[in-house]
Amino acid sequence: MTKVILKDGERIDQLFSTDVKIIQNKAVFSYSVDSVLLSRFPKLPKEGLIVDLCSGNGAVGLFASTATKAKIVAVELQDRLADMAQRSIVLNGLEDQVNVITDDLANLLDHVPRGKVDLILCNPPYFKVTETSKKNASEHYLLARHEIATNLEGICKVSQQALKSNGRLAMVHRPDRLIEIIETMTKYRLAPKRLQLIYPKAGKEANMVLIEAIKDGSTEGLKFLPPLIVHEEDGSYTKEVFDIYYGN
Amino acid sequence: MTKVILKDGERIDQLFSTDVKIIQNKAVFSYSVDSVLLSRFPKLPKEGLIVDLCSGNGAVGLFASTATKAKIVAVELQDRLADMAQRSIVLNGLEDQVNVITDDLANLLDHVPRGKVDLILCNPPYFKVTETSKKNASEHYLLARHEIATNLEGICKVSQQALKSNGRLAMVHRPDRLIEIIETMTKYRLAPKRLQLIYPKAGKEANMVLIEAIKDGSTEGLKFLPPLIVHEEDGSYTKEVFDIYYGN
Repeated sequence: MTKVILKDGERIDQLFSTDVKIIQNKAVFSYSVDSVLLSRFPKLPKEGLIVDLCSGNGAVGLFASTATKAKIVAVELQDRLADMAQRSIVLNGLEDQVNVITDDLANLLDHVPRGKVDLILCNPPYFKVTETSKKNASEHYLLARHEIATNLEGICKVSQQALKSNGRLAMVHRPDRLIEIIETMTKYRLAPKRLQLIYPKAGKEANMVLIEAIKDGSTEGLKFLPPLIVHEEDGSYTKEVFDIYYGN
Repeated sequence: MTKVILKDGERIDQLFSTDVKIIQNKAVFSYSVDSVLLSRFPKLPKEGLIVDLCSGNGAVGLFASTATKAKIVAVELQDRLADMAQRSIVLNGLEDQVNVITDDLANLLDHVPRGKVDLILCNPPYFKVTETSKKNASEHYLLARHEIATNLEGICKVSQQALKSNGRLAMVHRPDRLIEIIETMTKYRLAPKRLQLIYPKAGKEANMVLIEAIKDGSTEGLKFLPPLIVHEEDGSYTKEVFDIYYGN
């Protein structure tokens, strides 16, 4: 195996259903179930160009890489996180397929051609900036979780520019912001077509939503996929999520 | 029991969990699971004024009547359906609580005071008018199912006028039109706050959505209730829906 240097506090996690290994660091950034579900949500193009926006430590793009031959460009603003992603790419021997760009996503067109991207995956900051946002201890998590460096508007705007016609934007987000998400996507002619609600347990309210929108599509014909429940009553994963993590 | 005359083709159906009896006629109009679920979806005000728009044979308002002391005004454009509703009111001895108005819902303010309604329930026509709409055999079903006499715009407009501030509109509709529903509600300052997806069976896409909006509310904080599955694999009702029909 390629030798990759782990820095202080880092460990290697493995998504067993894909054999992909990801460098994690609880104090800096760790991927979670939302990244895993996002990488499995859209139908991936067999080839072409995929962009992973707000890529963090690269988990979404790296998981997706095992199910497509498309080139994958991961865009991450924070040096520290992009560095973890870069070393995970080497760790998995994916240098020919996956490429990390350390930049503001507003500059995406400096790195990929306009109107040529088949699919954009995005696990964005979920929370609006409020006074209490500042209380979050780690600056890395602050930027990853709060709309400080980007927001829905910025993501949809650059997605409209980068996607080819009928290209798709797949996003994971919070259901309590769905109205704003739909309004912003629609404003940038990204038509939501597939939604899936994620529930932490049976009988609980949804705490995540997966959304796929098509560039220049019509706003009719939205489909809601079967609901996905993450945990059993005892806290273990449901069979459906277990299979996503460990294969079936 | 009060003597009520049944007309040709009519039968009496009972929602056993409420003891309410409804006059049905397959050739003219029959309520379905969507009416039952809508009547159970919003928290009903203990008293005050409820309006049942597009009431058909009155099922939604009649089911709701058993769980509130509020006055209920049912509005139905079609004489034949309003007549069935009126006889069902007598059949259940609810003349003091439920009142049927035979009129276009656009004229709602001729019958209830502006800004005084606590809750509007609405099971509207689901389908846009198309060339093929005309092929539907019965004129009664044609008007009940297609946006010929009213549409989302008309319903939201009159709801905004009739509801009190923080009054609620609860609607059942098709998920494939959810974007238009949200846009139209938002246009009339009706903020969607609670959504529930209804799935015909486990593993299938949703085929109904229940939506509750608050007049003059903010568009943040949307909640998705736990999903509701209607049928088991063998076609029988799930326990949750069985309990709604028959009590538990």
